[in-house]
Amino acid sequence: MKFMKLGRRDVLGGLAAITAAGLASGAGNSAQAQTRGRGRVKKIATEEACSIPEVAERLGEVARSAWDNLDLKLVNSIYNAPADSPNALLAQLLDLESERLRVMDENDVDMHLLSLTAPGVQMFDADTATALAELANDRLADVVKRHPTRFAALASCAPQDPARAAKEMERAINTLGLNGFVINSHTNNEYLDEQKYWPILEAAEALNAAIYIHPRAPSDGMAAPFDAYRLEAAVWGYGLEVGTHAVRLMLSGVLDRFENLKIVIGHMGEAVPFWLWRLDYMGAPGRQGRTQKLKASEYFQRNFAITTSGVEDPLALRYCIDKIGADHIMWAIDYPYQPTAPAVAWIDEAPLTDDEREQICHGTAERIFHIAAS
Amino acid sequence: MKFMKLGRRDVLGGLAAITAAGLASGAGNSAQAQTRGRGRVKKIATEEACSIPEVAERLGEVARSAWDNLDLKLVNSIYNAPADSPNALLAQLLDLESERLRVMDENDVDMHLLSLTAPGVQMFDADTATALAELANDRLADVVKRHPTRFAALASCAPQDPARAAKEMERAINTLGLNGFVINSHTNNEYLDEQKYWPILEAAEALNAAIYIHPRAPSDGMAAPFDAYRLEAAVWGYGLEVGTHAVRLMLSGVLDRFENLKIVIGHMGEAVPFWLWRLDYMGAPGRQGRTQKLKASEYFQRNFAITTSGVEDPLALRYCIDKIGADHIMWAIDYPYQPTAPAVAWIDEAPLTDDEREQICHGTAERIFHIAAS
Repeated sequence: MKFMKLGRRDVLGGLAAITAAGLASGAGNSAQAQTRGRGRVKKIATEEACSIPEVAERLGEVARSAWDNLDLKLVNSIYNAPADSPNALLAQLLDLESERLRVMDENDVDMHLLSLTAPGVQMFDADTATALAELANDRLADVVKRHPTRFAALASCAPQDPARAAKEMERAINTLGLNGFVINSHTNNEYLDEQKYWPILEAAEALNAAIYIHPRAPSDGMAAPFDAYRLEAAVWGYGLEVGTHAVRLMLSGVLDRFENLKIVIGHMGEAVPFWLWRLDYMGAPGRQGRTQKLKASEYFQRNFAITTSGVEDPLALRYCIDKIGADHIMWAIDYPYQPTAPAVAWIDEAPLTDDEREQICHGTAERIFHIAAS
Repeated sequence: MKFMKLGRRDVLGGLAAITAAGLASGAGNSAQAQTRGRGRVKKIATEEACSIPEVAERLGEVARSAWDNLDLKLVNSIYNAPADSPNALLAQLLDLESERLRVMDENDVDMHLLSLTAPGVQMFDADTATALAELANDRLADVVKRHPTRFAALASCAPQDPARAAKEMERAINTLGLNGFVINSHTNNEYLDEQKYWPILEAAEALNAAIYIHPRAPSDGMAAPFDAYRLEAAVWGYGLEVGTHAVRLMLSGVLDRFENLKIVIGHMGEAVPFWLWRLDYMGAPGRQGRTQKLKASEYFQRNFAITTSGVEDPLALRYCIDKIGADHIMWAIDYPYQPTAPAVAWIDEAPLTDDEREQICHGTAERIFHIAAS
């Protein structure tokens, strides 16, 4: 996966890093400096969740609405907790510069690539979603400016209004200097391969900025078998929802139109790498009248990268390295949903070559998300 | 995964093998004998599809009905083809002792473990399904009796009527001497973890006979995102349907009740092995109020085995061996849906130890499906 590096943003990143170094102060940066040593591998965590109060408040309203949807199980538990016993995750999601930096420092994590946590703005009406995406992007840009060596961030947009989403995407990259986009899988049960969403794909490609397709619960049209045993969530449904989204992008042929589009999916590629042989065989161009130009594995190699979020399995990591290459893989914690220390220990101890570890811990992320190398 | 071997069936298999050896004649067996040599590994193919005219005819009626269901895409293409241009697959499915044996001989395949192809009898009304399952089981038992070293077979049952299904399951094992059961995932959009189907699980456990959960298209309640780009079929939907079925069995806790139940899933375990770390972490007993006793990987190790059907990927095979053990893995072709020669070449050339190859090519199948070793 080759990105043409944008000079503008490299320069921006470089300047930001220099500025940050000049301003470096406070317990966080000192603690990190102390833990740095020879042989240390820089760590950029690439699926790190956050929120802002305005989004959290509106998600509370969604939780209290009459909407019946699998995402409501999670949304209700986090954003509609009793006032006398608030959900601890919510505090962690809203915190950016306190506990979060402390946990990063304690675990020698250089950077969080922040993203507005699922379902993002995608359960709001189009106007609310558009406004809140802009607000969230402004807030994240501020935080990144204050801590340019500790944070990078993915911009949100409101797929509910693709034209305005594309406009905000342009602002997020060219004005705010953010690092890519997060879209929490389906929007109102529709997927990005559908033509109405092509302006979003077109914008991402033109801006040379990747779209991270983050999970949410399976769309209503596939919800039924997941409505038991909490299967809708991270344990199972999230992966099948995003995996299906990724496969739709490949087998629809939409990537023939957006050849340079970069898509990132988490959770060790939502098992799509494991399915590539079968996807290639059964989904070959021409088979059953298929009109897409390439095999799934060719799209995957050209248009996709994955993160390790939530799958701290050295065997799965080895499989993916051997299948798609360490230059397509990025480490992630999934803070605050998963603990930082085991995620760090896992990647530190994984049986990797030095080059593989460098790529997975930071090199691939620097390339895919235009984060300044340091 | 340890089976208590049943003396009765070992004896039956042994007698059958002796009888068969005595009767061996014809081009098929001669050709096979010629290709056998030192170092040859016996090959039992474990997901080999067939049909009988009576089932095919009723599936044609289903295809011509007003039923709107994702399975109809495949059913219509195979069982409702124009009379002047019949589907070639149908002829291969209906043939048991001619072309099939020739292809097996040409490719040095010892045995097909036959099963009535998806959707089996599961789209018929309960009475029709029960009658056709019995008929199919009789036919398969006849074929196995005629070629006991070349065929074993899985019995069908009609989950539409669990009590009668359990009765037929008992007959299929104890009277007909078949080797296990095939159930094509959901029945009328319901899964085997639901209490109404427990008589089927109870019968399988009591009979010490495995249930092979074979794919069909995703159930109606999860169909929508698969109703494009033929995603409902083998390329993607089949795997997610059966994977979801398997995860429901694990996380429902039903396997705490049927501790010795053996479940087989194809297609390299429908990617469930790849998900085990996340299933264990997010689906741990006690988490989110979960009441099942074990972690998913513990159920998978105790209650499941997989076949390689449709995933001829040496990396995926290596992952599975390292994750769950070659004693949980069986080779398969998926005849006639996939060609035999590449499936044979793949397993012959896969980088395996001798012991792994012996287990995957025949040893695991002999144990799981009570097939006489020879």
